[in-house]
Amino acid sequence: MTEKLRAAVIGAGYWGPNLARNFRSSTRWELAAICDLDRARATRLAEQGGSPRVETALADVLADEDIDAIAIATPAGTHHRIAMAALAAGKHVLVEKPLADTVERGEDMVNLAAENGLVLMADHTYCYTPAVLKMRELIDEGALGEILFIDSVRINLGLIQPDVDVFWDLAPHDLAIIDFLLPGGLRPLTVSAVGADPLGSGKACVGYLTLPLPHGAMAHVHVNWLSPTKIRQMIVGGTKRTLVWDDLNPQQRLSVYDRGVDLDLQALDGVERRAATVSYRLGDTWSPALPEKEALGSMVDEFAEAIGAGRPARTDGQAGLRVLTILDAAQRSLAGAGTAARVGADLALAGDHP
Amino acid sequence: MTEKLRAAVIGAGYWGPNLARNFRSSTRWELAAICDLDRARATRLAEQGGSPRVETALADVLADEDIDAIAIATPAGTHHRIAMAALAAGKHVLVEKPLADTVERGEDMVNLAAENGLVLMADHTYCYTPAVLKMRELIDEGALGEILFIDSVRINLGLIQPDVDVFWDLAPHDLAIIDFLLPGGLRPLTVSAVGADPLGSGKACVGYLTLPLPHGAMAHVHVNWLSPTKIRQMIVGGTKRTLVWDDLNPQQRLSVYDRGVDLDLQALDGVERRAATVSYRLGDTWSPALPEKEALGSMVDEFAEAIGAGRPARTDGQAGLRVLTILDAAQRSLAGAGTAARVGADLALAGDHP
Amino acid sequence: MTEKLRAAVIGAGYWGPNLARNFRSSTRWELAAICDLDRARATRLAEQGGSPRVETALADVLADEDIDAIAIATPAGTHHRIAMAALAAGKHVLVEKPLADTVERGEDMVNLAAENGLVLMADHTYCYTPAVLKMRELIDEGALGEILFIDSVRINLGLIQPDVDVFWDLAPHDLAIIDFLLPGGLRPLTVSAVGADPLGSGKACVGYLTLPLPHGAMAHVHVNWLSPTKIRQMIVGGTKRTLVWDDLNPQQRLSVYDRGVDLDLQALDGVERRAATVSYRLGDTWSPALPEKEALGSMVDEFAEAIGAGRPARTDGQAGLRVLTILDAAQRSLAGAGTAARVGADLALAGDHP
Amino acid sequence: MTEKLRAAVIGAGYWGPNLARNFRSSTRWELAAICDLDRARATRLAEQGGSPRVETALADVLADEDIDAIAIATPAGTHHRIAMAALAAGKHVLVEKPLADTVERGEDMVNLAAENGLVLMADHTYCYTPAVLKMRELIDEGALGEILFIDSVRINLGLIQPDVDVFWDLAPHDLAIIDFLLPGGLRPLTVSAVGADPLGSGKACVGYLTLPLPHGAMAHVHVNWLSPTKIRQMIVGGTKRTLVWDDLNPQQRLSVYDRGVDLDLQALDGVERRAATVSYRLGDTWSPALPEKEALGSMVDEFAEAIGAGRPARTDGQAGLRVLTILDAAQRSLAGAGTAARVGADLALAGDHP
Repeated sequence: MTEKLRAAVIGAGYWGPNLARNFRSSTRWELAAICDLDRARATRLAEQGGSPRVETALADVLADEDIDAIAIATPAGTHHRIAMAALAAGKHVLVEKPLADTVERGEDMVNLAAENGLVLMADHTYCYTPAVLKMRELIDEGALGEILFIDSVRINLGLIQPDVDVFWDLAPHDLAIIDFLLPGGLRPLTVSAVGADPLGSGKACVGYLTLPLPHGAMAHVHVNWLSPTKIRQMIVGGTKRTLVWDDLNPQQRLSVYDRGVDLDLQALDGVERRAATVSYRLGDTWSPALPEKEALGSMVDEFAEAIGAGRPARTDGQAGLRVLTILDAAQRSLAGAGTAARVGADLALAGDHP
Repeated sequence: MTEKLRAAVIGAGYWGPNLARNFRSSTRWELAAICDLDRARATRLAEQGGSPRVETALADVLADEDIDAIAIATPAGTHHRIAMAALAAGKHVLVEKPLADTVERGEDMVNLAAENGLVLMADHTYCYTPAVLKMRELIDEGALGEILFIDSVRINLGLIQPDVDVFWDLAPHDLAIIDFLLPGGLRPLTVSAVGADPLGSGKACVGYLTLPLPHGAMAHVHVNWLSPTKIRQMIVGGTKRTLVWDDLNPQQRLSVYDRGVDLDLQALDGVERRAATVSYRLGDTWSPALPEKEALGSMVDEFAEAIGAGRPARTDGQAGLRVLTILDAAQRSLAGAGTAARVGADLALAGDHP
Repeated sequence: MTEKLRAAVIGAGYWGPNLARNFRSSTRWELAAICDLDRARATRLAEQGGSPRVETALADVLADEDIDAIAIATPAGTHHRIAMAALAAGKHVLVEKPLADTVERGEDMVNLAAENGLVLMADHTYCYTPAVLKMRELIDEGALGEILFIDSVRINLGLIQPDVDVFWDLAPHDLAIIDFLLPGGLRPLTVSAVGADPLGSGKACVGYLTLPLPHGAMAHVHVNWLSPTKIRQMIVGGTKRTLVWDDLNPQQRLSVYDRGVDLDLQALDGVERRAATVSYRLGDTWSPALPEKEALGSMVDEFAEAIGAGRPARTDGQAGLRVLTILDAAQRSLAGAGTAARVGADLALAGDHP
Repeated sequence: MTEKLRAAVIGAGYWGPNLARNFRSSTRWELAAICDLDRARATRLAEQGGSPRVETALADVLADEDIDAIAIATPAGTHHRIAMAALAAGKHVLVEKPLADTVERGEDMVNLAAENGLVLMADHTYCYTPAVLKMRELIDEGALGEILFIDSVRINLGLIQPDVDVFWDLAPHDLAIIDFLLPGGLRPLTVSAVGADPLGSGKACVGYLTLPLPHGAMAHVHVNWLSPTKIRQMIVGGTKRTLVWDDLNPQQRLSVYDRGVDLDLQALDGVERRAATVSYRLGDTWSPALPEKEALGSMVDEFAEAIGAGRPARTDGQAGLRVLTILDAAQRSLAGAGTAARVGADLALAGDHP
């Protein structure tokens, strides 16, 4: 085994302890420091094991030449400042979603990481679950054929957040996953968003996103804080097979349906013949066994591997930026009553998907 | 028991036999005639019981003074011509969905029925299922409080129709049900529709409809011919309770959740306090017993009762017209890439929901 | 196509119409006669199509030399008399379950059919469902390895029958299916039955059957009339794979689990090492596509094929006799408070499973 | 708040840490000591918080007058020795299941606790889950009427234990729960057990228990280590209502069915009339909201309350002894090929259910 990398976790609130726990238990990492403005909170986290140093000032962490990387688990509004300082100090950076609070700041971070040859990674945890990793593997192998549609539902009786609406709270998960699944990433030209605030809470509590994909395909996301029944399901329809991921069914999270509709395009020359050349496959369903591995553990390992290999992480800053850019366009569409909003034009130039 | 009404079924194809069977078995109806251009087909249907007369010409049915009502189960393009002739001849009319092929023709039919004092009824079969009847009863009683959102999903590996897209094929069911459930009927000012035709079949195979409702509420419908997994689920969220109708779960079709989010509106004067005044109810779930009764049987009985009482049917021509008008607007929105389309302005004047 | 065989259905009550319908729609059969003591009932059934003759006397049916076979759908107490007369008259015979009301009478029937070279078939309808046919195919191919256990549950809020207990009402289904699945048929040496009659209805309403199988395996059946939740599930565990048949889940009736426990028997020489050599497979799950075909249609076709080929039917009289013999032993065990009862010793000599 | 009681946990292996964690987080307890022969293991557990003393000798724990109670989480074979010493030293005792390795030793413990006026509690954790507590509450209120049958299934692909069979491994859970639910506890006169060891592992891997209950009712338990599909379901059928507990469905763990069969016993004078007087209720289903509370936390609180009030715990030593006595009889039945075995006759004298 090569030498361990040394990580500092910035922010000891809700998510930081999860990151700390996984750095501690990874064979590739040493948890070197915990940094929080609230020293007592940082100390409590540090005492859970791994003997990290406790700091309250970011500068003291960044000045430590033995620290290779920082993981940012602070409010979104502080991501840009912390990440820019860390990248300037030569540290690799892992950032909780969303990457930043504006697209411009996200671009800054991506650009600085590229200039300094550092790994900037988006903490898209769901992409490292065994189910999503298997979905990507199946798509990469061509098991689905061409993607026809993606329908994602993430609804539950959820906490109404004080600062963000249901799109910013929940849709980053769906968008990050779809971005991970699609070869080349999720790069819609436009996005439409409609939302409802029927309680008068001042922000959307029910929301729907529509994302046109190449070749006539479409992705759609339903997020909802007001549903008493909990659903977390994604359907990825392909020309060959269709995946259904039901995250709340531990006995069969992932199903691969060998069913679908075939259209014999050669024969099309009119409505009548078109109908005649549709055929249906009603094949078997297959549910692959999935390993039991914590997603966050796989993510911190990927962070280490990307650093070691000098390559982008699987969910790199570009992926985080694509998600952010779509959320930004969704916000504009929502303000415009659902009229499709153009997704940031410069993005296509900003880099390539790993 | 009062004397039976006498019905003629026009069209002996796919749906006519179901209507004929229910007129035959109803205590309020006598099945008096079957009419189809194809005499052999009409004869086969007539032989299944009830001893109806067989006709091939509509005029011969309409000339029969003993016939009280006709039920139209012919292609949509013929509904207007047949219904107008029947209404002119003084017959009550039941029409398969959609009411007509254009909004104008639907309006003609509604107006003529009103002028002649006849019952024009839309065959919105789902509205007469025990589950939907119970849902309406609960909403009418106020068990849900104010409606916050309605989310309807109707997806399956479905036949690609030669003449209609997935909206015209499947969404009439969802729209008719929502129209039935909402006190006053479904009267959105606008509708947005997005669809995908990823197979290049020439029509949308995946579709989403968004309908803004009063007081910030919203209805949304997902229809899909390409899903290998079959879902027929409607969630009706209210301020007091939420209904979940799962039509494919015969053991528990309808669940009433006493769970939700309460917002203390009095106290709102800023983001911080707003968040603080949200509260959650996590109460019991209740699944009402539903009688086993065929929806179509309840529908033909309602047709008879409306005729007998000289009142509009529960799913009257107005209801059929509202659904048609929404589909028409959806078609315009779809052509306009999902920009919200205005739903026919005259409609609000056209009459009242029973 | 060869000439059609001609069948008469004896008994026009509950089950006879289903048989009649399938003989009518089969390409291998002509429905030649309906026989019932109640002429009006027989006539109503005859009028549903196929133009069969109506008879009230069995002798008139048996005297008709053009009739090849009879299907008996009369009360169990009359099976023996009718079948014996028919076999004596040279007719092939299909009998509704149970084969007869006593083991001796069932043996009579089996023996006479064998002597006269006629097909005697048990109407074990479930064996001809696509799910059970696929299960048998998988077992025959060796996909499960050795059978380790079979657990069958058939519970529901059921009608309390006036004349039979829950074992005679429901367990014939489970036993017939297990008999069909096991190579060589279900031939336990003993059976234990425990039952409860907590309502004081005079007969068991809840029952459990235990059937030891060769090589330490075991089958178990739970039948229950008092359960408000309906379950119809059979698990067939094997050394290689395990089948789960959930008859109430139309979206995934049959699942094949490539999971199990392996025991390295070579290494066993003590408790410690035994534990160490257990290993677990956690492989994929697979749900084969099943054709949509009515079981009763497949059964009448099998009846015709067995007659045509002069071979025993897949569910022949022997199979019916095995089921009857087990029910008979279960009755004795039940009377003896669950002490294992010996299953009729002569049975093993009576013939072979197809 | 009254002063905290002080507990020592004996055994720092698999279950001890769970007990320690709950004593630590309880407001009624102070975790005073951890005792394990392996000092390093005890130390690791002690370091997780609460600052308990670490001991390797039981005698040193028992000699500490400040310790009020001990919780035993050591192998079953050691329970008797440890508990007797603790009771002799005046400590209250909580014992992991099974209470002891023989009925006689269990009786010893119960008797000594009674003589010394100390609380002896069985760690029947499942009884303190919100679902089981609610089930008991409903039964105590009379919501079910008379109990008709109990059917419990606990199957999974489970570890084959080196020292115990599937009955001793899994059935204590079902028996403890049933004992808790039944007013007066589970006191069958006999028990029948059948098991299979189809892998030749030297012990039953599949097992069924039958327990006759008063008034013709019956309980039945299915335990299985070889099932690839996991089921944990208990049905408790009553004359008025029926409970179904599905422990693997977090969205609806508990359902109360207002469905059932009514028998008008007054009218019974023969088979014909008996059948005529059966009636069926098909009422609503109700799923009570359950609080989210860890069962083990509720259990340690109950231990403290019982000690404080000088009353038996809800799952007292008697309950543990009843479960043990049934397992003992089951073992005899299993050896006798399923013949009903008498459950220890002296037990009925040993004490009363709280």
